[in-house]
Amino acid sequence: MYKIAVVPGDGIGKEVMEATLHVLDALDIEFDYTFADAGDECKAASGVALPQETIDIVKESQACLFGAAGESAADVIVRLRQELELYVNLRPVKSYPGTKALFDNLDFVIVRENTEDLYIGLEEETEEGATALRVTTRNAVERICKFAFEYAEESGRDKVTAVHKANVLKKTDGLFKDIFYKVAEDYKDIGTDDRYVDATAMFFITNPQMFNVIVTTNLFGDILSDEGAGLVGGLGLIPSANIGENSGLFEPVHGSAPDIAGKNIANPSAMILSAVMMLDYLKEHDAARKVENALIEVLSEGKVITGDIGGNASTMEMASEIRRKI
Amino acid sequence: MYKIAVVPGDGIGKEVMEATLHVLDALDIEFDYTFADAGDECKAASGVALPQETIDIVKESQACLFGAAGESAADVIVRLRQELELYVNLRPVKSYPGTKALFDNLDFVIVRENTEDLYIGLEEETEEGATALRVTTRNAVERICKFAFEYAEESGRDKVTAVHKANVLKKTDGLFKDIFYKVAEDYKDIGTDDRYVDATAMFFITNPQMFNVIVTTNLFGDILSDEGAGLVGGLGLIPSANIGENSGLFEPVHGSAPDIAGKNIANPSAMILSAVMMLDYLKEHDAARKVENALIEVLSEGKVITGDIGGNASTMEMASEIRRKI
Ligand SMILES: CC(C)[C@H](C(=O)O)[C@@H](O)C(=O)O
Ligand SMILES: CC(C)[C@H](C(=O)O)[C@@H](O)C(=O)O
Repeated sequence: MYKIAVVPGDGIGKEVMEATLHVLDALDIEFDYTFADAGDECKAASGVALPQETIDIVKESQACLFGAAGESAADVIVRLRQELELYVNLRPVKSYPGTKALFDNLDFVIVRENTEDLYIGLEEETEEGATALRVTTRNAVERICKFAFEYAEESGRDKVTAVHKANVLKKTDGLFKDIFYKVAEDYKDIGTDDRYVDATAMFFITNPQMFNVIVTTNLFGDILSDEGAGLVGGLGLIPSANIGENSGLFEPVHGSAPDIAGKNIANPSAMILSAVMMLDYLKEHDAARKVENALIEVLSEGKVITGDIGGNASTMEMASEIRRKI
Repeated sequence: MYKIAVVPGDGIGKEVMEATLHVLDALDIEFDYTFADAGDECKAASGVALPQETIDIVKESQACLFGAAGESAADVIVRLRQELELYVNLRPVKSYPGTKALFDNLDFVIVRENTEDLYIGLEEETEEGATALRVTTRNAVERICKFAFEYAEESGRDKVTAVHKANVLKKTDGLFKDIFYKVAEDYKDIGTDDRYVDATAMFFITNPQMFNVIVTTNLFGDILSDEGAGLVGGLGLIPSANIGENSGLFEPVHGSAPDIAGKNIANPSAMILSAVMMLDYLKEHDAARKVENALIEVLSEGKVITGDIGGNASTMEMASEIRRKI
């Protein structure tokens, strides 16, 4: 029995969450769900986008499934990441069959630092405009680099690439690069290299096969993971895991998509794959593979899939089809 | 007669510059070139990557052709942009025939702010690590947005998109977004919208046709223009113009490429197209079209092109072929 916080949030968050719980229900695992509110609707109803009660529920759970928040996304998700010290944001870039992926057989992972950088919220108005502080601490860099190498080791991957802009950000990203290579010394079996973020954005398109595990700072990870989503057929397919010492929060990379919300047409795959990441986090690896393989089968058949990837099934129809294959 | 500063720099910078001057030589325009040093080799020889003499030569010229600098690129090019107040970095994303462009008929432009943001160089070591200051001033934002709208008007483009991360960077990018829409009021015929930088990185791949003119901050422009290069066949094809009130500096988006330097195999197109941008800047539009069309012809024929785009011609062979078509 796992205690799971469920935060559907706004827009398609609710729809893909319902679809995902329907799929998880087919597993032989007991989940004790506690539902909690967050996002724009919550703010409209209660005055705050992220009530303390929600934070508490998430803190008291073993893991959290998070759908999407609308305009208030930054206030909700960035705050949750910081409150729970979810210092890793793990974002796989993996091409699945039957999708509009530009490349077949893409399979790399972005390990995004999740607590600092320009996300720290130190902005100020000045006479001439405004400033924001980019913060890089040795501790945060060290733990994210360690995580990347541990992750590479555990998942049998053989290279970690640090992505930075140390030619311009000599002190902050210089530190990132230095610590990366220092941490690497403890992992002699794993290859290393480093790239500038701009060049990386190009190589994603011209030669993505060169990447295996990428470790990078918060904002670069944000941008690159969306670019990665583009490579493998769009945001409808990209899950993510926010992981800390004591908890994990699993959410699709996509947002609340107000343009298609309420129509039951959103692709549930990103949320379902986020649940797969949660299962792996809970060490329920068999169950994780079952769900992932069922999804792969449905994508391969290409019959009961949503419109964004070329089908015409509804969110729940696709979810039911996946559930049937489990 | 135009006074032009020529800074070949390091690595392939020298090769593509020679190729470009060979092409320009076929035009019926007189250029008075003054050569100047900058970059790694210059630093090794003289102790500084960007001698004051070079800055002076560039300042006294009507335009500057710049090749590439190696490791010292940031110290050279970022400083030149700031010293000369080259506040616009104009980067077309245009697919040419016969290249490995992912999309045919792509033709949009990135207008990158070129003087501030994290490029301002305000980094500090702290007890826990380091910080960098992101600076956004009303003045800089206003002039770059104005430039984008003026550019759209002059080039017959009908939409300007502001790219930012105002959900997280509420004050700095919030200001950027506000000023963008304020400036837009003076250009009622041009459409507007705005996007998050992460979503933009995805849309570049899944739906790049939605963009026409993009205006964005310095670092986002850096990353997105390299991604744009990936879309249209790689850095070998992407020129850029750094433009201020009194001068213009024209350089390929690619760097000095030490791995292929000295082999006479670098693609000269990005540098030649940078010279085309210079010709347009000097209002030599006929000459600009002549060179560009000659390049397009050579690319279309696909016979005398360099290895990066599928041929086996040398840098100078490709340049000579272009020259022949002028
Ligand atoms: C909603 C936003 C604050 C968030 C981020 O920038 O981290 C999102 O883009 C993401 O990648 O999870
Ligand atoms: C060399 C580097 C400092 C430069 C930049 O970041 O602006 C380059 O990447 C560019 O885009 O011209």
